[in-house]
Amino acid sequence: MPKLVYDFTEGNKDLKDLLGGKGANLAEMTNLGLPVPPGFTITSEACRAYMDDGSVPAEEIGTHLEKLEAAMGKKLGDPDDPLLVSVRSGAKFSMPGMMETVLNIGLNDRSVQGLVRQAGDERFAWDSYRRLIQMFGKTVMDIDGDLFEQAIDELKDGRTDLDLTAADFRSLVGTYKEIVRREKGRDFPEDPKEQMELAIKAVFDSWNAPRAILYRRQERIPSDLGTAVNVVAMVFGNLGMDSGTGVAFTRDPATGHQGVYGDYLQNAQGEDVVAGIRNTVPLQDLQEIDPHSYAELMEIMAKLEGHYRDLCDIEFTIERGKLWMLQTRVGKRTAGAAFCIATQLVEEGLIDLDEAVRRVTGDQLAQLMFPRFADDHGNTVLTRGMNASPGAAVGRAVFSSARAAELAAQGQDVILVRRETTPDDLAGMIAARGVLTSRGGKTSHAAVVARGMGKTCVCGAEEIEVDAKAGRFTVGDVVVEEGDVISIDGGTGCVYLGEVPVVASPVVEYFEGNPSGDELVRAVDTIMRHADGRRRLDVRANADTPDDAARARRFGASGIGLCRTEHMFLGDRRVLIEDLILAETAEERQAALDALEPLQKADFAGLFAAMNGLPVTIRLIDPPLHEFLPDIIDLSVKVATGKGTKKDRRLLEAVQRLHEQNPMLGLRGVRLGLVVPGLFAMQVRAIAEAAKAAEGARPEIMIPLVGAVQELESVREEARQILAEVGVEALIGTMIEVPRAALTAGQIAEAAEFFSFGTNDLTQMTWGFSRDDVESAFFGTYLDKGIFGVSPFESLDRDGVGRLMKVAVVEGRKARPGLKLGICGEHGGDPASVRFCHEIGLDYVSCSPFRVPVARLEAGRAALL
Amino acid sequence: MPKLVYDFTEGNKDLKDLLGGKGANLAEMTNLGLPVPPGFTITSEACRAYMDDGSVPAEEIGTHLEKLEAAMGKKLGDPDDPLLVSVRSGAKFSMPGMMETVLNIGLNDRSVQGLVRQAGDERFAWDSYRRLIQMFGKTVMDIDGDLFEQAIDELKDGRTDLDLTAADFRSLVGTYKEIVRREKGRDFPEDPKEQMELAIKAVFDSWNAPRAILYRRQERIPSDLGTAVNVVAMVFGNLGMDSGTGVAFTRDPATGHQGVYGDYLQNAQGEDVVAGIRNTVPLQDLQEIDPHSYAELMEIMAKLEGHYRDLCDIEFTIERGKLWMLQTRVGKRTAGAAFCIATQLVEEGLIDLDEAVRRVTGDQLAQLMFPRFADDHGNTVLTRGMNASPGAAVGRAVFSSARAAELAAQGQDVILVRRETTPDDLAGMIAARGVLTSRGGKTSHAAVVARGMGKTCVCGAEEIEVDAKAGRFTVGDVVVEEGDVISIDGGTGCVYLGEVPVVASPVVEYFEGNPSGDELVRAVDTIMRHADGRRRLDVRANADTPDDAARARRFGASGIGLCRTEHMFLGDRRVLIEDLILAETAEERQAALDALEPLQKADFAGLFAAMNGLPVTIRLIDPPLHEFLPDIIDLSVKVATGKGTKKDRRLLEAVQRLHEQNPMLGLRGVRLGLVVPGLFAMQVRAIAEAAKAAEGARPEIMIPLVGAVQELESVREEARQILAEVGVEALIGTMIEVPRAALTAGQIAEAAEFFSFGTNDLTQMTWGFSRDDVESAFFGTYLDKGIFGVSPFESLDRDGVGRLMKVAVVEGRKARPGLKLGICGEHGGDPASVRFCHEIGLDYVSCSPFRVPVARLEAGRAALL
Repeated sequence: MPKLVYDFTEGNKDLKDLLGGKGANLAEMTNLGLPVPPGFTITSEACRAYMDDGSVPAEEIGTHLEKLEAAMGKKLGDPDDPLLVSVRSGAKFSMPGMMETVLNIGLNDRSVQGLVRQAGDERFAWDSYRRLIQMFGKTVMDIDGDLFEQAIDELKDGRTDLDLTAADFRSLVGTYKEIVRREKGRDFPEDPKEQMELAIKAVFDSWNAPRAILYRRQERIPSDLGTAVNVVAMVFGNLGMDSGTGVAFTRDPATGHQGVYGDYLQNAQGEDVVAGIRNTVPLQDLQEIDPHSYAELMEIMAKLEGHYRDLCDIEFTIERGKLWMLQTRVGKRTAGAAFCIATQLVEEGLIDLDEAVRRVTGDQLAQLMFPRFADDHGNTVLTRGMNASPGAAVGRAVFSSARAAELAAQGQDVILVRRETTPDDLAGMIAARGVLTSRGGKTSHAAVVARGMGKTCVCGAEEIEVDAKAGRFTVGDVVVEEGDVISIDGGTGCVYLGEVPVVASPVVEYFEGNPSGDELVRAVDTIMRHADGRRRLDVRANADTPDDAARARRFGASGIGLCRTEHMFLGDRRVLIEDLILAETAEERQAALDALEPLQKADFAGLFAAMNGLPVTIRLIDPPLHEFLPDIIDLSVKVATGKGTKKDRRLLEAVQRLHEQNPMLGLRGVRLGLVVPGLFAMQVRAIAEAAKAAEGARPEIMIPLVGAVQELESVREEARQILAEVGVEALIGTMIEVPRAALTAGQIAEAAEFFSFGTNDLTQMTWGFSRDDVESAFFGTYLDKGIFGVSPFESLDRDGVGRLMKVAVVEGRKARPGLKLGICGEHGGDPASVRFCHEIGLDYVSCSPFRVPVARLEAGRAALL
Repeated sequence: MPKLVYDFTEGNKDLKDLLGGKGANLAEMTNLGLPVPPGFTITSEACRAYMDDGSVPAEEIGTHLEKLEAAMGKKLGDPDDPLLVSVRSGAKFSMPGMMETVLNIGLNDRSVQGLVRQAGDERFAWDSYRRLIQMFGKTVMDIDGDLFEQAIDELKDGRTDLDLTAADFRSLVGTYKEIVRREKGRDFPEDPKEQMELAIKAVFDSWNAPRAILYRRQERIPSDLGTAVNVVAMVFGNLGMDSGTGVAFTRDPATGHQGVYGDYLQNAQGEDVVAGIRNTVPLQDLQEIDPHSYAELMEIMAKLEGHYRDLCDIEFTIERGKLWMLQTRVGKRTAGAAFCIATQLVEEGLIDLDEAVRRVTGDQLAQLMFPRFADDHGNTVLTRGMNASPGAAVGRAVFSSARAAELAAQGQDVILVRRETTPDDLAGMIAARGVLTSRGGKTSHAAVVARGMGKTCVCGAEEIEVDAKAGRFTVGDVVVEEGDVISIDGGTGCVYLGEVPVVASPVVEYFEGNPSGDELVRAVDTIMRHADGRRRLDVRANADTPDDAARARRFGASGIGLCRTEHMFLGDRRVLIEDLILAETAEERQAALDALEPLQKADFAGLFAAMNGLPVTIRLIDPPLHEFLPDIIDLSVKVATGKGTKKDRRLLEAVQRLHEQNPMLGLRGVRLGLVVPGLFAMQVRAIAEAAKAAEGARPEIMIPLVGAVQELESVREEARQILAEVGVEALIGTMIEVPRAALTAGQIAEAAEFFSFGTNDLTQMTWGFSRDDVESAFFGTYLDKGIFGVSPFESLDRDGVGRLMKVAVVEGRKARPGLKLGICGEHGGDPASVRFCHEIGLDYVSCSPFRVPVARLEAGRAALL
């Protein structure tokens, strides 16, 4: 028979699984000798037993209650001097607001009289009693809480809480009891033990309340953990001006500086602070109000911080001059403070550098890398969209990619405003300070590409009507013409007319090689250096241009993990691809390829030069050819309405011929390489020639969309031959982005020198949904219904996609022990995904240049977890 | 050191892995005491060693050669009385025409004189010598064979082979040697041992010839097996009229009847029979030509059949009155003969019924189920397409689904002719005798659906220009108007003008309950009954209509494994779906659903009645809603050119709103159920109401496209509630068709009472290609390049898709021991896939009604393998 109830003296902070976070910390403080009201914790194991068979460990609870009564010198519900207790939930994982609490258990018609006598405060006692009935009625007996609120409102009749007298509360108790009787057909239970048992069961039951189930589903908290229940002797901060309640931090949560930070409210209970009935005073004032308690509190806080070796937040109550600690936990903090606190604690000798790296997150670093608007700018919001990519951007509105590039080249800051963006807008997005769209969600093209670039983006601002041809957008009556200055806030989704002052990120300046020397930058520097020293994962960047590559190197990338060659086919070169597609003979096709080859060679030469001997992974062309052609619907309408040129008609034929129902699952990647003679060969030759001309270039040729080893064998043979002809060495490997590639990785590894997980496609195919389509159609519904807590395109789905990756890692390495393994999907810059990549033993992650520092930090943390 | 060379006296028929098929059977015959020319087999293990390091077990070969020389009383290449040998390949799996053979090894300028003397036939000896040089030059020395052919043609100068004299052949030997010298810069090797060793190496090398690699890749024969080599003493059927060569079957391969079946050619060698230089005589004639050899042959054939317990085919040679057995193997036969032979062997007591079931295949049964054209109809072919679905169909050409249904309702036979078919053509396809399309391949919609229905289909007949509006098609100058009679042959792809006489399938008549009583039907009946008794797999049918369901029952289905409810939304009801999609308020949407519900209820009632208490699995609506709307391009053009109605404009808005880049990966299946309120509920209620009204109905509700257990939980909760309200019991389960569903099957099984593998979608997502798109774009290339040997949509891809299925079976059953497991993709009717489903332990397969007998038979065979 396991022990199902722990006195606070019996637990400690490492028993969170059993006692929950709150119970474990209460026990820890008790054992530190801090003044915690006595109490005990009923374990989560008891909760699981209750969920199975409805049992409650009544006998053990009884024993512990007796101990508690002995410690307090009072008995639960004693008519003369009643012990009152609170019953509070406390699960292993914090589930804020999800679970239940009942205060003042032990009061009934007789014991309330004892409380009156003992407290010497009739109003307080009756107020406490009505609070019990109200909380108990709502929480335990499942009565609509509004009924109690209405009753008190009627009684107040315009007066405030403070105006209510003892007699008022006494009559309210009668009204509340009547509500209970009417709603439930039974009386409010007067027996204190019954109150306690029902409250405990109610807390257990709250584990399976719909909102808790939904929350757990979203957070992927196992549904069978259960919650612990804490039964704590009540102490009261509302017994007069020598009582009060407060919250405090052991150091400044915004900066990490040591000092006194907190708030205090005299003659009040915790719930009153939350309700904001009066203004709190700064914690410092307590020194004057109650110097003894203040000194004790300072001592306790120092002790707690030394003990937890971190910033703690606490809740305390002073009952008639006696300090009680009601809760402590490691405190939340801002992103900047996290870095500063971690390094300060190192300097103070409380933690070592490993621990400091563990104490900060990649998400926090990412937050610090965005510019932001000044806090008090006072501009009014024109409209709002989705906060798709953080940061703050100011510039002139422009409505085409070409115009954006043109004005940027003249040194102007511009914001690209589009209904939605396409790959054709890339140049404009690169040139712009920020991107604003009226359609599409957080995983739309604009959002994804902007996040990748670290560029501010607000998308799906639906009130905006974009008229790109006329060069303006409107929001209601407001018209914004090309050239008008607007400001967009990627952190809030707000759009402003005119210029809002921007604060640049000192952290980005640091990564760019311009450290400011302020405390935050020094902290980031310290932590990044240590993380780099610890990490096992290499970090590469996804970069298609020499500029991106150079930035990636400055940000700490040790290679390029993905160069998307199709991005080199856009813009001016589109016409060459059209020639290729429209070619009717082998000669015409070869001529089109011959025209492309020198351009590609120059592209690769630029990358090799920028990376100066670091490895550069080049993916051969991946998308279906019709992506390079005009839209089939537009072209069909143009030709049908007689507006098409002769070339339009030829293009329409080609588009129709190449049209696919599901291009994502169509003729692309290695399939294209096998079906279009000479296409891959042209690219391989361009890579080889460029590598030959560059000193020490280390090309790695990557074949996309392989699903069967036979595909890879076919194209690899041709590539090897070309490399041999040119006299260049290069690794040849493959993306693992089709589920079958992962499932047959043992076979594929026989023909591949490296695997790079293309987790964007792998996620699409493993889940069977296309990012282009599903995001707007149903991701909202899915997030609401808790089908997933985060989009699997943002953070790797470990159970599905991750499982395939593990299979491929294990079986690929088994077949080829030296196999190099990396990831080049966008997940390569997502903190949780980086940790997963470390766990399954990849050699590197590759992400957009802007995310490289985040990946470096998370790789370091992963090595230390 | 393993034994690498086996004398024929040392092997047996069970050593095929080591000795190959030919060597193992030669050894078996030797041990049966049959007159096999002495010889030995160099094992496939020796071949593997040779491929590794180029080694040949020369010493062991030498020892066995000496033994062979001793047995024959001659020495290899002896100038006085030379032993000649053939060197023949023989792998474990038959690879017809892939590998090499060299005859007459041992001849050179001196030994040819010995052969002249011994044979007493100068012409024969020199002919044998030139044949050696020709075969050796081409096969071993890699010289272009045409050079030898040209030389002999020049020499003949219009004469026939038989006109050539000894002197001619002697001069040809000189010419051939000259060719060898010129082409290879070396002399033809005169040393007989060198000849033998080079020939052995050439056979080993032929294992890795490109054509053999391609063949193995297609057939998935492991590339490291290697081939065995047989060295056999030459015997000669061309030593005069008392010599000859022949082939024979131990019984009639077309009908299975006992008797004498074969051909004989006097004074000839096997290769002459193949070349057809003279007409053979029936084997019976040998009784007169050489009664002694004939009697011996009859005795041997009886012995072989008794020994192999099956029809054997043999090759034999008579050398001057002495019979030699050169080869035997279990003989090929027609589909009908396979059934007849198997049951006859049972009647003769040679095999039992289990073995009889093993001796026939589902493919053979399927062949027997198609009608065919009479053999000698004499009509001329109008054009050809792909043989997409077998059978023979005759009828009037019609060009629309509606017209097909109309004429069929009048009792006319029609052939539906379309450019390509869509789901809208279903009614017409059902009504038609056959389907002819001018576009699309063997996995196009027309082909797949027609095969599913067991309906004749010729597709991709590219010479045909279909003008559906005008109601005609043309092939060159020939115009076929609506109502003209055409005939199509799904077995050959031929299209004929006019009526070709058709022979119905007696096997289908048998399954329909009208057995003809002929031998074939009795054999099929015997075997099907036994297979049914042995199989562990249940066989269900995919059926959407009461007619299909009734047919499925007649064909032996024990339930419906897949009813596709979306097929109930086509035709007249399309307007109701349009109302649903165009609904702008919750009320309008509910009104549209309310209009659909009674129709759906009637649909389900019909199915329950037809299945009379057998389980009926109903899949809730699966395809994206826009599939029920007009094509976006057509509609865009219509509206842009001012031809659209007001409704067209509303529809266009809806189509644009619902348009998806990749509908296969879009808003469909369970996603639709979660996003469109009331849609699934309407269907579940219709099922429940229909089931309540039908006695003993056993509905099983299937949720499509589930990828996460949370999706299933959400819709299952609602469905359970509706079932409870109506008061009906039903299983609720899910398709496993998204890779993630298989990967998280353990979680999903907690919410599913059954899994049904939707292997069409699962194949699409596991490989990352859409059947609609890839087939015409690159399947041809892939089959040519050997990337797969058969389309993974036709036969289950065991390594990829199959692996996911295994994961789901094991982990699903672990989570829920009673979990019911089935398959409802088209693979459910594919023989190899049925065996796989048996192997991994499914409970049932479900396939189109027409394939039910095939699945029953294969399920029985799988249980016996």
